[in-house]
Amino acid sequence: MTDLLIRRVNVLQLRDERASILADHDIGISGNRINAIEPTGTIDPSGAKKVIDADGQAALPGFINSHAHVAMVLWRGMGEDVNLETWFNDYIWQLEANLEPEDVYWGMQLGLLEMIEAGITAVSDHYWHMDYAARGVEKAGTRALLSQAMFGANGLGQIDETAGFAQRWDGAAGGRIRTILGPHAPYTCDDEFLRASAKKADEIGSGIHIHVAETREQTRASLSRRGQTPIEVLNVCGIFEVPTILAHALGATPSDHEILADAQAPVGIAHCPKTYAKLAMGFNNLVELRALGIAVGLGTDGAVSNNTLDLWEAMRLTALGQKQVTGDAENLTIAQALTIATQESARVYGQAEDLGDIAPGKLADIILVDLSGTHHFPLNSVTASLVYNARAGDVRTVICDGQIIMREREHLTLDKDEIMANISPRMERLRRRENTGNIQTYNP
Amino acid sequence: MTDLLIRRVNVLQLRDERASILADHDIGISGNRINAIEPTGTIDPSGAKKVIDADGQAALPGFINSHAHVAMVLWRGMGEDVNLETWFNDYIWQLEANLEPEDVYWGMQLGLLEMIEAGITAVSDHYWHMDYAARGVEKAGTRALLSQAMFGANGLGQIDETAGFAQRWDGAAGGRIRTILGPHAPYTCDDEFLRASAKKADEIGSGIHIHVAETREQTRASLSRRGQTPIEVLNVCGIFEVPTILAHALGATPSDHEILADAQAPVGIAHCPKTYAKLAMGFNNLVELRALGIAVGLGTDGAVSNNTLDLWEAMRLTALGQKQVTGDAENLTIAQALTIATQESARVYGQAEDLGDIAPGKLADIILVDLSGTHHFPLNSVTASLVYNARAGDVRTVICDGQIIMREREHLTLDKDEIMANISPRMERLRRRENTGNIQTYNP
Repeated sequence: MTDLLIRRVNVLQLRDERASILADHDIGISGNRINAIEPTGTIDPSGAKKVIDADGQAALPGFINSHAHVAMVLWRGMGEDVNLETWFNDYIWQLEANLEPEDVYWGMQLGLLEMIEAGITAVSDHYWHMDYAARGVEKAGTRALLSQAMFGANGLGQIDETAGFAQRWDGAAGGRIRTILGPHAPYTCDDEFLRASAKKADEIGSGIHIHVAETREQTRASLSRRGQTPIEVLNVCGIFEVPTILAHALGATPSDHEILADAQAPVGIAHCPKTYAKLAMGFNNLVELRALGIAVGLGTDGAVSNNTLDLWEAMRLTALGQKQVTGDAENLTIAQALTIATQESARVYGQAEDLGDIAPGKLADIILVDLSGTHHFPLNSVTASLVYNARAGDVRTVICDGQIIMREREHLTLDKDEIMANISPRMERLRRRENTGNIQTYNP
Repeated sequence: MTDLLIRRVNVLQLRDERASILADHDIGISGNRINAIEPTGTIDPSGAKKVIDADGQAALPGFINSHAHVAMVLWRGMGEDVNLETWFNDYIWQLEANLEPEDVYWGMQLGLLEMIEAGITAVSDHYWHMDYAARGVEKAGTRALLSQAMFGANGLGQIDETAGFAQRWDGAAGGRIRTILGPHAPYTCDDEFLRASAKKADEIGSGIHIHVAETREQTRASLSRRGQTPIEVLNVCGIFEVPTILAHALGATPSDHEILADAQAPVGIAHCPKTYAKLAMGFNNLVELRALGIAVGLGTDGAVSNNTLDLWEAMRLTALGQKQVTGDAENLTIAQALTIATQESARVYGQAEDLGDIAPGKLADIILVDLSGTHHFPLNSVTASLVYNARAGDVRTVICDGQIIMREREHLTLDKDEIMANISPRMERLRRRENTGNIQTYNP
């Protein structure tokens, strides 16, 4: 009954925020779930349909990207060294006026290709033309939680439209695809729109993925304009009555933290430290958030701010950033950083029962990481090496939903040459910035 | 007269802190110097002894590591998630009691192996048993500026000893090796020792490589103990009358900055942001330092704090860190980060005339970087990709002093298997922490 057996691997285990390694173990997979983890020699490999010898490699849960705009990878390297307002008004919202549905299909595949190479097996993606994004995910063999972005200015009719998308795709690709509603932010969606979004999410058994309090300045602006923080606005509009992913929440106040901790439905925060550093947004204090029991997962945001879709980087910057923010080198620990990257990201993603851990009964989303590189030697600590030394290029093999999607760095689902060939001719059009018809204005 | 011709490459050029790319150019090398940079087609390849076709790759000056303790790579992954005092007293200065001369020979080679793989062709190394380190550098084919560490408590006799080392090796390996004196820090060397070190450096035409003001706390402690900042102490002891590399200077005050800007001899600061973040030391404000004309180069420090010897990481964290420190996403720019990593690091290293730039007449220290990876596509900006996307694994070929030392990731000077085989049996002894005979106590 074992479809796939991974042999002689070092399995990362995280329990109560402590990390350990099960050395020289085998992982058995039946269908799309893990059915056994045993010392090598216990499981007879001749009974397995497929065997991977991963001698000396580390097995980790596939990384989960809690917040991204995957197809924006098309514009990486544009919008550099500018502040947030310029970044939105002179780059993003000009560039996105060029976006066509097929761009998202190919951009999504490109981003998934990069994420697979970096060991990311699931992404919570908030973007445009999401039917096209979903087709990319179907093909890639990864998981995704897809939300079609909405600006209030485009009218309430969008809510039914995107609910239609959500219902069309929820549970598709054998359950690999889930959906959620995506109002953009409280500064681009008015209260009526937010209320209607929350109500619709509740009606169709979905949730909300939204940007909020991206900077402290947004919180100040909201307080001065209407006497409520952005998180208070979401709260009064009923957003936290459905499962919610909050992108950033950097400007959350201590009383906002209490709102989040007391929320009726699960609310998680996606933390995207490379983007925060790059746009000089500061970092939130994850030690405080986590002490309140609030789930924090890792995200890459879009590649126009983050440049890469790489959660190794995000994990490292999260640990380093929190040492800076708290002024205490004991925060976050290696085990905490690994927990955030796996179990806590699964919680934000809404599948803590099934993902983020290598254990019998969990879905088989597993990455195999080569620790034989010079930059890991001598391997005095596997867990330290995973947080502070590992690079995306160390990921050798990626398994999602029990299927091998990259083996020894060879893609088995996506075709890099085809993707590049389809993107290259689009780039002249996509790169244009003519300052006609920005899709939105940043003025929170 | 062309010994080596690199063809069809994209050459990074930095002029007045602006970056540009000479696309499809050839670089000619004669002996150990660059003799031509011309559009491909201009130089007849049939006249060259060796040709590298680097189609589509980027050519950068070899990176220069301004401050390291290379052989500490032996202990990477130890001393994690602890504050600076614990890190020194419970780890470093216990572990270093185990160190034997041959450990440095092999540890140096291991660190050089990792640095070559990351495109680092020169290192300013401050450590113990430096005759053994020098032998490693001879073998690796890289450049090094070597300083034998000294604690004042070990007596003034060391100064003559290490001056002996410095004179023995300065100019060795065809000029690839230079030397400099290495008193450890003002909190481990008293004024008499610092004065004698500066005097000796002046006598033998050498300089000083020293740790100073590693934290703001060290500055406060020095002020409260003796009414002078650590940098004022170095100044009154005559250190800045000889060329000096200052490691860190994080706790430098505005008046310290003026001392450095007015120094008689060249004084540069090595900036090691991964270590600073990891040990919660904060960052210095490089924008202010650079506005005063003070040279700032990149460093990795030792791998017990930094985990890796990777200046791609250091460059990225420098740019990201300064955006944080200044609260302004326009600081540092991509071109400034690249300038710090190349020309300014060469200045700190004391060879600005010869290194840090690809131009006719410069020494031929060149790295070829593959930008065809998924994480660079589409390549909307080569320079943005170099700062925010490139990984050590993208370095394909490394040339130092006109010689190819790594070609298509194959090492031509060092033997990884031999190095690992010689290090592995040493590790049980090296990892012991028995709290007997710390080599020093941290109590600044």
